[in-house]
Amino acid sequence: MSGEDAPAQQQNAEEQKNQETKKPAEEPKAETKPDSPPDSAATEAAATPAAEKAPEEETFTYRSLVLTGYGGYDKVKLQVKKGKPALKAGEVMVRVKVCGLNFADLLARQGLYDRLPSPPVTPGMECSGIIEAVGEEVTDRKVGDRVLVLNRCGLWQEVVVVPTTHTFIMPAAMSFEEAAALPVNYITAYMMLFDFGHLRPNQSVLIHMAAGGVGIAATQMCRTVADVTVFGTASASKHEVITEGGVTHAIDYRTKDYVEEVRKISPKGLDIVLDPLGGSDTHKGYNLLKPMGKLISYGAANMLSGQKKNLIAVAKTWYHQFSVHSLSLIQGNRSVCGFHLGYLDTETELIAQAMDTILGLYCRGKVKPRIDSTFHLEQVGDAMRKMQERNNIGKIILTTEPMKEEEKKEEAKKEEKKDDKKKDDKKKDDKKKEEKKDGKKEEKKEEKKEEKKEEKKEEKKEEKKEEKKEEKKEEKKEEKKEEKKEEVKKAEN
Amino acid sequence: MSGEDAPAQQQNAEEQKNQETKKPAEEPKAETKPDSPPDSAATEAAATPAAEKAPEEETFTYRSLVLTGYGGYDKVKLQVKKGKPALKAGEVMVRVKVCGLNFADLLARQGLYDRLPSPPVTPGMECSGIIEAVGEEVTDRKVGDRVLVLNRCGLWQEVVVVPTTHTFIMPAAMSFEEAAALPVNYITAYMMLFDFGHLRPNQSVLIHMAAGGVGIAATQMCRTVADVTVFGTASASKHEVITEGGVTHAIDYRTKDYVEEVRKISPKGLDIVLDPLGGSDTHKGYNLLKPMGKLISYGAANMLSGQKKNLIAVAKTWYHQFSVHSLSLIQGNRSVCGFHLGYLDTETELIAQAMDTILGLYCRGKVKPRIDSTFHLEQVGDAMRKMQERNNIGKIILTTEPMKEEEKKEEAKKEEKKDDKKKDDKKKDDKKKEEKKDGKKEEKKEEKKEEKKEEKKEEKKEEKKEEKKEEKKEEKKEEKKEEKKEEVKKAEN
Repeated sequence: MSGEDAPAQQQNAEEQKNQETKKPAEEPKAETKPDSPPDSAATEAAATPAAEKAPEEETFTYRSLVLTGYGGYDKVKLQVKKGKPALKAGEVMVRVKVCGLNFADLLARQGLYDRLPSPPVTPGMECSGIIEAVGEEVTDRKVGDRVLVLNRCGLWQEVVVVPTTHTFIMPAAMSFEEAAALPVNYITAYMMLFDFGHLRPNQSVLIHMAAGGVGIAATQMCRTVADVTVFGTASASKHEVITEGGVTHAIDYRTKDYVEEVRKISPKGLDIVLDPLGGSDTHKGYNLLKPMGKLISYGAANMLSGQKKNLIAVAKTWYHQFSVHSLSLIQGNRSVCGFHLGYLDTETELIAQAMDTILGLYCRGKVKPRIDSTFHLEQVGDAMRKMQERNNIGKIILTTEPMKEEEKKEEAKKEEKKDDKKKDDKKKDDKKKEEKKDGKKEEKKEEKKEEKKEEKKEEKKEEKKEEKKEEKKEEKKEEKKEEKKEEVKKAEN
Repeated sequence: MSGEDAPAQQQNAEEQKNQETKKPAEEPKAETKPDSPPDSAATEAAATPAAEKAPEEETFTYRSLVLTGYGGYDKVKLQVKKGKPALKAGEVMVRVKVCGLNFADLLARQGLYDRLPSPPVTPGMECSGIIEAVGEEVTDRKVGDRVLVLNRCGLWQEVVVVPTTHTFIMPAAMSFEEAAALPVNYITAYMMLFDFGHLRPNQSVLIHMAAGGVGIAATQMCRTVADVTVFGTASASKHEVITEGGVTHAIDYRTKDYVEEVRKISPKGLDIVLDPLGGSDTHKGYNLLKPMGKLISYGAANMLSGQKKNLIAVAKTWYHQFSVHSLSLIQGNRSVCGFHLGYLDTETELIAQAMDTILGLYCRGKVKPRIDSTFHLEQVGDAMRKMQERNNIGKIILTTEPMKEEEKKEEAKKEEKKDDKKKDDKKKDDKKKEEKKDGKKEEKKEEKKEEKKEEKKEEKKEEKKEEKKEEKKEEKKEEKKEEKKEEVKKAEN
């Protein structure tokens, strides 16, 4: 088996086939050792001795996205793997149609996600496709089955080998795009809201990043319960879509303080807060809880700032990390939960139960993944950028379909522009770095702002007090006047 | 209104009636100011101007238990209150039959429960009785209704005035004893297991103090769900009863390490841990959780040691208090919850929903309070002692029934013995104090014990290693022998 490294957007399957017999003209950039197994799914191939290989297996190639090292968007490269992966008992081989992008993939690229093995490695936690081969002892799947797949990693490639328990038969009406968009976001939303959250009619829920994958899934899940009030944060341009999707009160977190906005509408607070942000937002969420309220933390998106690992953002998120004492929970009658599907990969029974319910909801038209945009494998960098810059409404997916000739030409033009873009990116990053250097200064500024706010509040209080005092004075004056009048009257009488 | 203070076990209603016109022969011990209103329920009476009082209201008296100051069992005194309490709109007056004892009452007596107003005050969070009068705007209750009552405090007396929303109609088949034993324990068990815990079929639950009020209620609640495995801790003498009650695995926490016992049977851990103990037991509970497991903390019984507030026990529990970071929760897919009914007293709707479900379960024979023992109001000290020393299996209740003459005589005999007992208690307390002084020494001893245990484990490991080494050596020897044999054979050939 060998992994041939090539810059994304320059190779596709057809080109690869032509290059099978000779080495590609463009030598791989060699961030990865060509012979190292990029992921667990592919290591099976290496286990097959070369001498035993059938001719078909020798000519078997497939394209694969490989994270070659931690860093920016260009660290994920499109490579070609050779050799048919071997199947162990209980495993199936899937010809992948569509892959889903997740926040964990962005963290992983920066080296912030400990569930992904060290590079070189193929990322990807979810995909959809068709079963191409089944291993021994597999009785519940057959060649040709349309399946969605959930795995710890390794799914961003054309062919994957996974345990059959990690695959789920797609409902007939479901498209491959929907199937790839469903597992991570909907299982996350479902388990958080119903297992930890115990969502019931008439309750209220705060959903951050309500236009993101989990946000939209959670909003749809809330709509399966009667009279649930959904507060959703997103930038103003996304409000129309999320409101149509079921958000009761859309809040623009960029221009408004979401805590104040929630308190205005729901002074007693909230039953459930879903928190993908971490850091100080977890504290805010906790303080918004009603008695018997549940805070469910499921990420630290606040750690993600810029293309590469931003140590200051990471440190700040860690520093502001929420911790709670049990006696404080007792006195508040509150619950604090943590969720991450990536750490549940061995809980096949739990996952299967959740999937079963979710596919049932899909078939009854209760939930339906919203696709934001589809990218080719070659465009994975653009896909990640769009997600990280939060320009999506719904799910971003990757298709394994080869790019058409005209698309490739367009890409080539873009590519030319990209160098300029990269320069821009570098400038941006440099600027950000400088800003971050001044991070402490900014914090101080914020503190000052808050101090000023409080000062203003106090000033207002003082004003009110003084107004009251003056009112009282005037009342007293009038009382005195009245007294005097009465005295005068008495005197007159 | 006046509260006449007298030591418990020396006055009953009939005696009081005889003493109504003249001051009692035994002057009250006067730990309390007789004229200060002991609790909110009784303050209504004080609001009624003496001039407007009807003759009937002037002669209206009722016995009341009053916490006269923080400390030992003798701090709760039986007093007689005079004057009919006035009813505000939305309130009802209940003639109390039976009162329930709770752990919070024990903590309150020691000054460790911040939901009880300062002494002098009447404790008591639950009781049962008959409605004797209804205030204006009360449409859902009428005189003669049998009700159970839940209130922040003030229910350990013959007559109580509470908002109608704090009363619940008793099912016809329910006795007053059961009704007084039900609210606190069953609402606590229900909300913990089903709202925070989301208990489902095939799950596992650890119930500490499984023979206590909440323990028995929680065990019964677990039995309403199919195939739930209940681990229950209690001293060995109570195992038969709790096993009959539904505990699957009874663990004697006095002689065995419950963590080890649970791991033996359920190596993956537990779905739900109910923790009334606090301190280091909360840590142990957290570490026993499966992925998606919930730890529900609902008390700090470890703080309770001896008759009076034990500062060392309190400090130790605080010191070992559990705190958790959100990122740790995320990586473990865990939930930590805190529950205390005492802090939910304004959540009438939540409480009403829970009560409704629980009374439904009672009517269908799914739950039934187990009464451990009934005490007269005069015997409240003995009742508290029994609970604090954990000699009960099920609920301890107080009846407002006057003591019979023969009972009184027996009590008098006991009273004589009590002086000796008190001396014994003092000795015990002194001994405990000394022990506590040596607390640090003991901790060190325990540490040493654990060190020794680990040493032993390591010794065993070493032994095993050496055994293995020897096995290997022998294998090698045999291999060599074989080789030699073959060499010999070759040589022979």
